[in-house]
Amino acid sequence: MPLLVMKFGGTSVADLARIRNAAAKVKREVERGYDVIVIVSAMSGKTNELVGWVGETSPLYDAREYDAVVSAGENVTAGLMALTLQEMDVPARSWQGWQVPINTTSAHSTARFVSIPRDNIDQKFAEGFSVAVVAGFQGVSPEGRITTLGRGGSDTTAVAFAAAFGAERCDIYTDVNGIYTTDPRITSKARKLAKISFEEMLELASLGAKVLQTRSVELAMRYKVRLRVLSSFEDTDETSGTLVCDEDEIMESKVVSGVAYSRDEAKMTLVTVEDRPGIAAAIFGPLADAGVNVDMIVQNISEKDYEGHVGAVTDMTFSCPVDQVARARHALEAAREAGTIKYDDLVVDVDAAKVSVVGIGMRSHAGVAARMFRALASEGVNIKVIATSEIKISVLIDRKYMELAVQALHDAFELDAAP
Amino acid sequence: MPLLVMKFGGTSVADLARIRNAAAKVKREVERGYDVIVIVSAMSGKTNELVGWVGETSPLYDAREYDAVVSAGENVTAGLMALTLQEMDVPARSWQGWQVPINTTSAHSTARFVSIPRDNIDQKFAEGFSVAVVAGFQGVSPEGRITTLGRGGSDTTAVAFAAAFGAERCDIYTDVNGIYTTDPRITSKARKLAKISFEEMLELASLGAKVLQTRSVELAMRYKVRLRVLSSFEDTDETSGTLVCDEDEIMESKVVSGVAYSRDEAKMTLVTVEDRPGIAAAIFGPLADAGVNVDMIVQNISEKDYEGHVGAVTDMTFSCPVDQVARARHALEAAREAGTIKYDDLVVDVDAAKVSVVGIGMRSHAGVAARMFRALASEGVNIKVIATSEIKISVLIDRKYMELAVQALHDAFELDAAP
Repeated sequence: MPLLVMKFGGTSVADLARIRNAAAKVKREVERGYDVIVIVSAMSGKTNELVGWVGETSPLYDAREYDAVVSAGENVTAGLMALTLQEMDVPARSWQGWQVPINTTSAHSTARFVSIPRDNIDQKFAEGFSVAVVAGFQGVSPEGRITTLGRGGSDTTAVAFAAAFGAERCDIYTDVNGIYTTDPRITSKARKLAKISFEEMLELASLGAKVLQTRSVELAMRYKVRLRVLSSFEDTDETSGTLVCDEDEIMESKVVSGVAYSRDEAKMTLVTVEDRPGIAAAIFGPLADAGVNVDMIVQNISEKDYEGHVGAVTDMTFSCPVDQVARARHALEAAREAGTIKYDDLVVDVDAAKVSVVGIGMRSHAGVAARMFRALASEGVNIKVIATSEIKISVLIDRKYMELAVQALHDAFELDAAP
Repeated sequence: MPLLVMKFGGTSVADLARIRNAAAKVKREVERGYDVIVIVSAMSGKTNELVGWVGETSPLYDAREYDAVVSAGENVTAGLMALTLQEMDVPARSWQGWQVPINTTSAHSTARFVSIPRDNIDQKFAEGFSVAVVAGFQGVSPEGRITTLGRGGSDTTAVAFAAAFGAERCDIYTDVNGIYTTDPRITSKARKLAKISFEEMLELASLGAKVLQTRSVELAMRYKVRLRVLSSFEDTDETSGTLVCDEDEIMESKVVSGVAYSRDEAKMTLVTVEDRPGIAAAIFGPLADAGVNVDMIVQNISEKDYEGHVGAVTDMTFSCPVDQVARARHALEAAREAGTIKYDDLVVDVDAAKVSVVGIGMRSHAGVAARMFRALASEGVNIKVIATSEIKISVLIDRKYMELAVQALHDAFELDAAP
């Protein structure tokens, strides 16, 4: 029998009425002839409550106990979902991580999948059960302790089950109805994409379009799991939402698929750094140790007068989230005091934003960057930093121009028109 | 190393501050040289919330899913308690039922213990852990599903662990500071008992002194587990609370140890029932099927004119909780319509209460009943029904005299004076 994985996030199972709504969607797929594995999150707010209790009890908590506590929310939803399905005459049972078992590493709170043996669940399908409701976000370690997978872990659970059971598709039900060319709150011209490639989705996710957790997309890409993002609050059919898939499945695509942004970026520049081998490591090592998420990095080399002699010096510029500026400054100043790096000045600009265009079409089309810069120039938007990858071009600009820039780029690449 | 079991109920772990308070009591026992197994309930209100969700989702729920959901509360408390102990530098870890494992029958929601293997927890004690925090109320079935033990299950878990691990004592921390000769709200002369026998405690528990769950006392009696009931909201030492123990440990005891009562009783009388073999079964079978908890039963046989001929007839009187009267009436009338029983009339008195005196001393002392009836008569209290067991005498009286009767009996048996 063909098999689907359906995942419902916290807002989709926030109360009993919403669980019923989600269960009705599951029932429809069963009636279409599918066996279904349902992955559920905790009812929204529940995990945060548990995390809060743990933090208040023990600031430097034992991660094994943290996992034992915070996994409780998913167990509750799984049982309630199974009961709701049974009420609708759909043969269902709940599965906690250790019952499947979902074998993971012992890295508590950030565990990774080791294996998901199919035997137990397959046996229940063979006995006539149509639905296995699995508690997301959790697993069991080789030592028999409960583990959790970290933020967004239920998405990752869904993809892992789809891979393990060879599911036809993995449907991620959430509070948006798909992936858009850009944020509809910024331009009403934003258009829902019918399909998007894994690579593009990865770039969009890490850029702040927080619909799918990055790790789940990576996993889907690796195992070629077709992911569909769709709304749990709308009537949906097989054409709803956005399919995230291999680019081979996308027959026609534009050069650029979407415009992403990240609002609260800071730009930090170390002025007049000695240019020598290892200087980048000396700078970014301490930043990484301090937990600063450095994003774009630009280095300008010049000949300057440096500490009384003329030599190769450089200005090193990088971006990071605004709320990590203090931490970054502290790490850099400590490194200067320790003598591992030298610089004349540290210039910080906390009023930046990042805007990016993403598209697999860039690989085969030249001139995308020029078109982007032209569109920004024509609106008078100054570019502070540029960074590029194979399928993405990002610029750091003044935050006040962010919406304007997104709109201009959306127009310039004609994203409002269907491909 | 000597071992203690300490059990904390829902009000004793209602929030993080109370969990800290409970943990401090555990730490004190560890410092005295004990290994400790801590059994925890869910934070008060949590289990009711979960039970409510299940009932709303599925009125005739699958008990396996019910158990999977309602066991979540204890898991949360167990993790939080372990973390709190760790913060106090006490080496502790949490255990969920399946991790121990607490093997039970498959009778979901009313499961019974099959075995509690010591290996896993003993190994942790050997590795230097001082405390095992075990989620109460739950276990795991032979099929690997989560089970629960029914109401008061955490008390039962505590006693079962004390038996399995040969604990020196099982301390039940609750919101009262011991077992009293009677309810202190009814007479200020009520006195806390230092010791009480298992048998007496069983009679007091089933009569409405709801401090300890009946099954846990039965289990303690069978395995000779010394139980201590004490308050989690007071400073306690080794002499606090009330010890529930084998009667051999109680050197001196009074004829009567306590006066119990049950306020909302109803008396139902079937008038002129044909007296024939099997008539009691024909009456009480349907009542049991309807879930009516019949308590006292009295039958008066007489010769009467019955349906036109003189024969042996009887009046059958029984008591049950007031809120079950409608159900009882319905069951009896259905049986009459079906022709399985015949009676002239059903007389219902919903204004009754039950008062009982309990004491192992009754076994060797005559005249207790006479003394009881005299005390009631001197206050003008009329007795409706009398029932006796080896260590208990109960009477059904008008509810309005209940407090008066309890006070009179407490005085008559001089329970305010120490033995």
